[in-house]
Amino acid sequence: MDTLVRNATLLTMRGDRLGIVDDGAVGIDGDRISYVGPAAEAPEPGDAGTVDAEGGVVMPGLVNAHTHMSHTLLRGAAQDVPEIEWMNRALGPLSAAADEGDRIAGARLGAMEAVRAGATTVCEYAGDVGTLAEEVYQPLGVGVVAVETINEVPDERGDLGPRELYPFDREQGERALARADRLFESFADDPLVTPAYGPQALDMVSPELLDAVHQHARERDAKLHLHTAQGEREAIQVEERYGADASTVSVLSDLGVVDDALVAVHCHGASPEERRHLAESGASMLGCPSSIAAIDGIVPPVAEFREYGAAVGIGTDQAPGPGHHSMFREARTAATLSKVEHTDPTALTAPEALRLATVGGAEALGIADEVGTLAPGTRADLLVVETDQLSTAPAVDSPLHTAVPNLVYSTTGREIRDVFVAGESVVREGTFVDADPAAAVEEATERAAALYERASDDWRAAGSALVTAVDEGWL
Amino acid sequence: MDTLVRNATLLTMRGDRLGIVDDGAVGIDGDRISYVGPAAEAPEPGDAGTVDAEGGVVMPGLVNAHTHMSHTLLRGAAQDVPEIEWMNRALGPLSAAADEGDRIAGARLGAMEAVRAGATTVCEYAGDVGTLAEEVYQPLGVGVVAVETINEVPDERGDLGPRELYPFDREQGERALARADRLFESFADDPLVTPAYGPQALDMVSPELLDAVHQHARERDAKLHLHTAQGEREAIQVEERYGADASTVSVLSDLGVVDDALVAVHCHGASPEERRHLAESGASMLGCPSSIAAIDGIVPPVAEFREYGAAVGIGTDQAPGPGHHSMFREARTAATLSKVEHTDPTALTAPEALRLATVGGAEALGIADEVGTLAPGTRADLLVVETDQLSTAPAVDSPLHTAVPNLVYSTTGREIRDVFVAGESVVREGTFVDADPAAAVEEATERAAALYERASDDWRAAGSALVTAVDEGWL
Repeated sequence: MDTLVRNATLLTMRGDRLGIVDDGAVGIDGDRISYVGPAAEAPEPGDAGTVDAEGGVVMPGLVNAHTHMSHTLLRGAAQDVPEIEWMNRALGPLSAAADEGDRIAGARLGAMEAVRAGATTVCEYAGDVGTLAEEVYQPLGVGVVAVETINEVPDERGDLGPRELYPFDREQGERALARADRLFESFADDPLVTPAYGPQALDMVSPELLDAVHQHARERDAKLHLHTAQGEREAIQVEERYGADASTVSVLSDLGVVDDALVAVHCHGASPEERRHLAESGASMLGCPSSIAAIDGIVPPVAEFREYGAAVGIGTDQAPGPGHHSMFREARTAATLSKVEHTDPTALTAPEALRLATVGGAEALGIADEVGTLAPGTRADLLVVETDQLSTAPAVDSPLHTAVPNLVYSTTGREIRDVFVAGESVVREGTFVDADPAAAVEEATERAAALYERASDDWRAAGSALVTAVDEGWL
Repeated sequence: MDTLVRNATLLTMRGDRLGIVDDGAVGIDGDRISYVGPAAEAPEPGDAGTVDAEGGVVMPGLVNAHTHMSHTLLRGAAQDVPEIEWMNRALGPLSAAADEGDRIAGARLGAMEAVRAGATTVCEYAGDVGTLAEEVYQPLGVGVVAVETINEVPDERGDLGPRELYPFDREQGERALARADRLFESFADDPLVTPAYGPQALDMVSPELLDAVHQHARERDAKLHLHTAQGEREAIQVEERYGADASTVSVLSDLGVVDDALVAVHCHGASPEERRHLAESGASMLGCPSSIAAIDGIVPPVAEFREYGAAVGIGTDQAPGPGHHSMFREARTAATLSKVEHTDPTALTAPEALRLATVGGAEALGIADEVGTLAPGTRADLLVVETDQLSTAPAVDSPLHTAVPNLVYSTTGREIRDVFVAGESVVREGTFVDADPAAAVEEATERAAALYERASDDWRAAGSALVTAVDEGWL
């Protein structure tokens, strides 16, 4: 054994509850967990390093199951605007000015924020995601589910009316598919990188390409990660292309892509029957409550999917809008929004939300054999969380474990003391072991200032509600 | 001048927007602000201490406008349960076992959390609030609006059916009113303590006593801080006592207590017409979005009251349920919940939420001449907030101030560097200058463990959903 983490309350997430172990210990051998159980029964550590959790919580690393981290460079640039303006008028004119360096710097900032807040696996959804895996995630030493965006709609598609069909560029789509295929070779030797296919949305890929992507995914036993039924513009495109009765889920079903490879993201535009159909077909679901609330004013159906028995994870999407990449915060938001959506304070409880943020995300992404629980033989991705901070105290273990709700409803981010990924210490005593957050912040800030300067006229010309807010002294 | 805080973006909150000043400075003389404006025009500091904000934000201290801090001792004890169980079966059996020392320790923990998270004024609503002012807030050196709870319902009221009227004990009510009156003498010499009257709710005081309280409040130009239309149990009691057509707001109106002394808390049970009537009558409103979402699954009408032109503040209520006392987090929750309540991402924008958390709360509590804005002559309650953290970067000032949305949507609590109250440094470089958070946590944890031990059987016998959750391995 290399390390024994002891003096902790364990939340193992094994079984279908929290798998709580009082006065527990976790042994680490190499990149694997070798022991999980009562401290009193742990093997003698011998020469192992001992990590004293000082009565805190030890739990699986958090799984941030859906993100576009590059946009973190534009945190604060797009929120509080009508949904129709968010991409086209607020974020779009700025993100169009981002170069590859900007995208890397933004993703690095976001990924470091996520890891500092307890994520040990981040699902990154981007074009040319391999570059982000190499430049951001491999140097950080954390897990990444690398989803290559596949999109056939040319950037220069002109000023289309809402009912005019997007043009498709099949070659653009094929190039993206080839990039996705290559991920499986490029990262074959890195167990921390899990490639996946990311057809962007049904309105942005042709049925022929979607079928091809689905076949590639099935051949590689990989996931097909798809923004599904995410709003009005998609619904209109689907009606125009597939007929007035068509919906995203009905077309996906007809195309044969609703199966256990499908990871359906968002789903707020699907009907309850369609959601149930997705769940019963073995598809998993990812929700981004903070993001969809901020951008659309809508609560995504994560509590509902969970009740259908589907694997469900949550993610932080992108910083402009929700503002953050903290998974404890996302768990709290998921629980709080589910309660008001159903006018029911018992909807999505704290322990249920903790499962979404760990094993749920791992199951939805197809990596639950490796991460999401504390179990011997799985990858040693785990956190030591302090429960004796001003924001989370007092922690008692009887008659209930107050740390469980307090992790969800009370953590600020200060409480995550240690982060281990594959047995390596990534954050120790609240500080990155190898990475340099100040440098990441500095680079992102310099690049953001330059980007805003060169895109400022376009941003102003696009005329979002934020331009008025600036002129009126609100921003 | 004693101190010049410079190299900052100021959010002064003056006027009806944010009053943003780029490259600004704030001068402090004694307990007062003596200069607010461009750094280039600031008086020479002379021997003054200079505080370099290093490009961060300087803004008024946050006003946590409604709390019951003693319950912080029971953080994590009551959430995710049906509304009907929250007080009677979950929190009640535990809080009944709290002694005065427990109440002080809980309030100290909560108040320190609040201050560390940027509050410079806390509105504390409690029985014998004077003791908390002396034991908790005066030693911390922060502002407190001390609201004495006035309640005529005996603790030992037996097991009443929902339509059986609560008995009233007028002497109990008169004793509380006398305690409230005495606050004005006891704290006459402390400008950081603002007493107020707190009749608990219309179902818990007789009309005669409420009338007396209202007269005392008007005579002293003090506020009457009242939980108003906070749910079904109150509505039933009001119907039984005042007639089938009676509602809380209609009865309050008939009793003549709806005026500019009234601070109406929660209000989710009032009709839209009643809410408008409250606002137009000069009453102010306080909402606790995290708390009411957690406990009732309801979004309080803070955005609505704001649009009626009423003074509106927000507060964190109590830790069991919402889990926290951070006002930036409360601002984010208020904005996020308002968006999903109205299916409108423009509802309650970040800058509007920042006003609620500062000047809005100050106006609602009647202390806006002293706090809530950065203005010469007002009390020097202010924050230095870092905007170059992983969670909030990048900060740019053009073409928009990204720090404004990022304070609301992105802060974790790590970013509040300095807290000044009445010109004194309470938190410096992220650390309390005088107070000892570790001791507060330790005392609260020891007391909580003892309290849970002695109340555990009662808690289990009360049979809330949490008892089942523990038995099933969720908690």
